[in-house]
Parts: sequence; C-alpha cells; structure tokens
Amino acid sequence: MRKIKSNAIVGQSGGPTSVINATLAGIIRGCVGNVGKLYGMQNGILGVLEDKVVDLTWLMNNEKAVSGLVDTPGAALGSCRVPLPSDLDAAVYSELFQKLDSYDVKYLFYIGGNDSMDTVAKLNAYSKKMSAGVSIIGVPKTVDNDLILTDHTPGYGSCAKYIATTVAELWADVSSYNVPSVTLLEVMGRDTGWLSCACCLPKYFFGSGCSLVYLPESHFTVDGFLGDLERELRQGLPILVGIGEGVGTGDEESVDSFGHRSLAGIGKALEREIKNQLRCKTRTVELSLPQRCASHISSLTDVLESIEIGKSSVNMALDGLSGKMAAFVRRAGEYGVDITSVDAYLVANKIKYVPKDFINSENNFVTERCVDYLAPLILGEKKVQFKKGIPNYFELR
Amino acid sequence: MRKIKSNAIVGQSGGPTSVINATLAGIIRGCVGNVGKLYGMQNGILGVLEDKVVDLTWLMNNEKAVSGLVDTPGAALGSCRVPLPSDLDAAVYSELFQKLDSYDVKYLFYIGGNDSMDTVAKLNAYSKKMSAGVSIIGVPKTVDNDLILTDHTPGYGSCAKYIATTVAELWADVSSYNVPSVTLLEVMGRDTGWLSCACCLPKYFFGSGCSLVYLPESHFTVDGFLGDLERELRQGLPILVGIGEGVGTGDEESVDSFGHRSLAGIGKALEREIKNQLRCKTRTVELSLPQRCASHISSLTDVLESIEIGKSSVNMALDGLSGKMAAFVRRAGEYGVDITSVDAYLVANKIKYVPKDFINSENNFVTERCVDYLAPLILGEKKVQFKKGIPNYFELR
Repeated sequence: MRKIKSNAIVGQSGGPTSVINATLAGIIRGCVGNVGKLYGMQNGILGVLEDKVVDLTWLMNNEKAVSGLVDTPGAALGSCRVPLPSDLDAAVYSELFQKLDSYDVKYLFYIGGNDSMDTVAKLNAYSKKMSAGVSIIGVPKTVDNDLILTDHTPGYGSCAKYIATTVAELWADVSSYNVPSVTLLEVMGRDTGWLSCACCLPKYFFGSGCSLVYLPESHFTVDGFLGDLERELRQGLPILVGIGEGVGTGDEESVDSFGHRSLAGIGKALEREIKNQLRCKTRTVELSLPQRCASHISSLTDVLESIEIGKSSVNMALDGLSGKMAAFVRRAGEYGVDITSVDAYLVANKIKYVPKDFINSENNFVTERCVDYLAPLILGEKKVQFKKGIPNYFELR
Repeated sequence: MRKIKSNAIVGQSGGPTSVINATLAGIIRGCVGNVGKLYGMQNGILGVLEDKVVDLTWLMNNEKAVSGLVDTPGAALGSCRVPLPSDLDAAVYSELFQKLDSYDVKYLFYIGGNDSMDTVAKLNAYSKKMSAGVSIIGVPKTVDNDLILTDHTPGYGSCAKYIATTVAELWADVSSYNVPSVTLLEVMGRDTGWLSCACCLPKYFFGSGCSLVYLPESHFTVDGFLGDLERELRQGLPILVGIGEGVGTGDEESVDSFGHRSLAGIGKALEREIKNQLRCKTRTVELSLPQRCASHISSLTDVLESIEIGKSSVNMALDGLSGKMAAFVRRAGEYGVDITSVDAYLVANKIKYVPKDFINSENNFVTERCVDYLAPLILGEKKVQFKKGIPNYFELR
C-alpha cells in the first residue's frame, strides 16, 4: 500500500527581496515527490488566521510557472509584519494550529528575516508543547544581511549587485561635470552597513565610484564627515559618497510594529549640513525600494543559492527537524557554500553587525577583508525574459 | 594628389543620458575615412575656451574602444551648462573661433538638448557672419524628450524602459502587503510628462503597476488627486502612483544657470497631503539620477538610433550643412525612423509638450495613442558586459 504523504504549507514574511520567490521555488521543487498537498499562506501567518490559504500543489507539476517565480521580485504569496505574543497560552496559537490541522499540515516553511525567525521559534515551541507534530522550518531572506549564524542571507547579493551597478553608473553621470559637487547615495540598512559596503566595490575594483562610504557601525561625527568631504573636494571635482540609512540619527523617526526605528532622511539631513558648511552643490539619491526588487539585475549566485536553501529546508523538515533555520556555511578556499541548520530561536531578533576589521581606520571606507567577503556574492547574471520591452514577471495572486 | 581631409570636433552638453556616448560613437564611426583629425571638447564649449581639447583620432581605428563607449552612460567627454550670449560681438565668439581655427576644424558636432541647440544656432550665426566656414551640427539628446521637430530624442527610450521596468518591479514589491498604502513614484520631467507616460506601460500591458499617473501637462488639483487616491484605496490594497516632478509646484525652488526651476520634492509635498488628509501609509520613491544613467537596461532601439543619428550628423556636415539639428521622422506603418535635418534655431529653447490626446479625460492616465507612440521606443535589450559582477564601463577621461 502506498504511504500517504504529509501536507506542507509555506509562507513569506517581512520586507520582500528580489529572490524571496526563488526560495519559494526551491521549496516547491523540494516538495515534489515528498509531500501530498502544498499550501501557501497569503500574507504569512495572517493568511492562516484569516483562511486565506491557497493550494499550490499544481505548481509541483508546473516547472514553467516555478521558473517564472524564480525571476519575479516581491513576495508572490504576499507578506506581513505580525509579531506573535510571547505567551504560548495566547489564543492565537491554538487558533493557528487548529487551522493547520484542518489542512493536515505536518511541515511549515516560513521565509523571512530575524522577526520571522522569532515567529518560527514560537510556533516550534507551541508545536513541541502541544505535541502537535508540525515541523517548523525557517528559511532566511533579507537584503540587510543582518542574520547571525549564517555566512550571509539570500537577497543580500542581489541588492549589493544593484547598488554596485548603480554606483558605477552614477559615477559615469556625476563625473560628467568638472565642478565640485557632492552626490550622497543613501542605501538601505536600518541597523547595519552590509549594503553600504557594496558602495565601495567600483572604487575598489576599478578606481572610480564612491570615494567615501559610511556605515551605521562606523564611528560617525558630522565634523569628521565634513572634514573628509572637504579633503576630497580639494581636487575641484564631483564626488560620490555612500551613506547607510542608519548612519547617525535622521530627522524623521517613526516606529514600526516591531519597534524598529525607521530612519529615512539621513542623506537629506547631511545634504543640508554640506550646503550650509561647505557651500557646495549637493544632492541626495535615495536608492529606496528599487534596490530590493530590481530582479532584472539579480546576482546569479544569490538566485541559485536562494533556490538551494529552499530545497534544503524541505529536506530538514523531511528529516524531522523543527525550530531550525537553514543557514549558509562558506567553504574554505574557492567560493562555495554548504547548507546547515541552526536554532531559529538563536537567530530571532538578533542583529549581525559588520565586523570592525571590515571598516578602515578612518571610518570612511571598507577594507580588503570586506571586499573578499562580499565580492563573490554579486557574481553572475541571469537571463531576463522581456515582454514588450519590460521584464516579464509572474503573478501568483 | 591626395585631398587633405578637414578636421572635426565633437562636444557633449547638458544632462547626460544612458546613450549620449552611443551618439558620440556614431559620430566617431561616421568620421572614419571622412575627416583628418577628430578632436573632443572636454566639458563642451568650456573645453575649447580653456584649451581642454583631446585628440580622439585614435578612436577612429579602435572599434573595441568605440563599442565600450556605446555601452557607457554619462558624458564620456564631460559636459557643461554654459549659455552663450545673444550678442554675436561678444568676445567669447571670436575667442572660440580662434581656438577652433588653431585645430583647423571645419566640422563641429554638439550633442545636447534644447539649450545646446541654442549654442549650435549661435555658433552657426557667428560662423556665417564671419564666413568662418565651420559646419555646426547639433545632435539631439535628452531623456526628457522635449525637443520639437523630432519624433523623439535619443535617451528617452532608455529612460522610459528603466521607468517601466522599475514600475513592474515596484508593483511586485509594494503589492506584497494586503493593507492600503500609497507609493508615489517621482520621475524626471521638469516641464513635460514624457517620462511620466512610461509609468503607465505595465498597467496598460499587463494589468498591474501604476493605476494613476500625473503629468505636468495634466490639469492637476490636490483635491482631485486626493479624490482619485481615495477611490483607488477603497479596495483596501496598496496602490502605486506615478508623478512627474513638474506636477504642481514643489517646495524647494531653485534656479539653474538657464533660468529653469528645479522642482525636486513634489512627491514629498504630496506625501504630506496624503498622510494628513487620507491618513494612509505613504512613501515616496524618487527615481532621481539612476533613471538617466542605468545603461545596463538601455533600450536597444534607443542605442541603435543614437548611434545612427550620430553617423547621420557627420553626413550632414560633409554635405555642407550648418546650423542644423539631426532629427527623427517616424515612418508610417511598422515602426522605423528616417533621419532628417531641421534648423537648430527653431528647436533652441523651445519645449515640446505631451499632446492633450495622450492624456485621458480624467487627467490621471495616458491614452492608447500615447502607448502606441511610446511602446516601440523601449523595445530590445543589449548585451551588457560585466566585470566582477558589475557592468564594465569605459572611461575616456
């Protein structure tokens, strides 16, 4: 008699990336032949609570659609930002697990960042406590690269490649004029400077690009910053400066549902300082949302790794693991990664900062060690499918 | 006896584009076999006045370098924004023509927008007045597409393709959440909405993207705008809205050397109105400089036409024309262009607005006629050369 295979459910959570759907595609591929039905949560755990669950089983037999998913930015299943309560006796847990039980789900995959790993840890704790027997596996994603216990995160390489490309192109543009000017490039990174590091690559490799780059982890003073600029501007030419959004403290602070500060506007604040103090033509380019969804210029390395970590997370569930996050371990020597599992509760709500030896002693650029870490992650390009001159993206919803 | 060929000089002026160097490459190719020496002005006519003129003759025998130029954004020769005086007796003219004479230059090519065509017209008037015998040819470029007497301008299609691509990607990102929100996408266009039109393409073709798009030419009131948004938001989902930077009046007005208003900040100003009046989560994405230099996603149609118009301008000079701008005439039927010459003085300082029948009656989207005009201009992709994961651009300076 044929053994009946268990069902699985997958959700996406937190800020989307260019490759969060590549990980979803990897999970779908991993499920082929191994699970009965595959469900998708619409907008993460909210979808489960609100009975917005879609049957994705058809995708297991549709490689064309899955390939379309690989190429498409944004969270194809929809995302959410909903923290779960610390108290496992809260009604939301019994509600969630009743719903999961109604779909006969034994494997749950949650693709997200450090907030989502908090969700994974709590769902696992509840499943264990109630002997619900659901394997809960977290799959990392964040352009911020700020998860601990993994060499890097899916999504980071593609965002870094977009930033490095944009720096190379902006340099060609702003250096067209032979008068002194400052162009501030504000990149994402609420707490950490991993994305700011990518601003350094064109200058490091090719000798032109951002000559100064500031990370949230850099010791930063406005006076030191203005001093650096003044020195660079002595050549009488335009300069390009990378700024992580978390550098210093911005003007407009707001608090999101997880209690994070949203620091939009550091570039504009510094722009005012430069205009007042140095009286130099200055403008700010905020890379904003395009940096996390420009999948037409994704890193092929990132895309392939994102698929692979999705597949591996299915194997972890099939092996009976729960409460784990799939993680990258970098091999020694030539670049490559192995995928391992770590405890999700250890990753939850923690932040991995850029190490001190990645930042130069002047606190205004990165070191060779940083470039060695980052460079392989942006390598490779994927073939983009265009329709009427626009990348042809796949809509699941 | 071999006839001695005359020398030529070429300059770039105004805001750079992704393909202004493709036009330079076309001029270089057009010069092969037809001119003696080819010079380049560094930073436009400023370079002539300041003796910053480079010998580009070597490029006529180096197709590899010329191909590199085709791919590279920014103004490879450097650009400037320097208006010439109306009075032809001003010393600057005799100075300029003495310098040109010292290089034995008989052909002058000036790649630029409507301000640069003013320069072309004035140089031609002086050349005629003094019987200097220099053929002065303008070659159009501007992402703004606001030059009269040409079907469109080189640079526009690539910028429009970048915008349409970014809209498709942003839609995938912002639609990941199932709560109402407004994302305002601010695109370039000081006076005209040609680039705003590109925001409409994904919605028009694929049914998703910007559902509302406002052009500087649209009749615009904040109340009407808020009413449109309120209606769209009734579905309780995110919306994406395209805004031309010249819509309404921004907060921060400044005046550049040509007396234009620089209207950065309309998005931010409207964002405040939305937050106050509709109490809805709102953010602004300013596409800013990347839209005019993202040559990794140039329109192949635009690239090829930009090369072609450069070549044709050389033929115009060889034919003895002067004071002319090369211009596109669209063929009837299947898309294609012919290149003709028009009087530069007619183009100078004029603005071509988006016609009324390109804008819908609600003043919040474009019409089919507009799409028919724009769609062929963004077609095709070129092969991008990458080095270490970053587009490999060519530096002439």
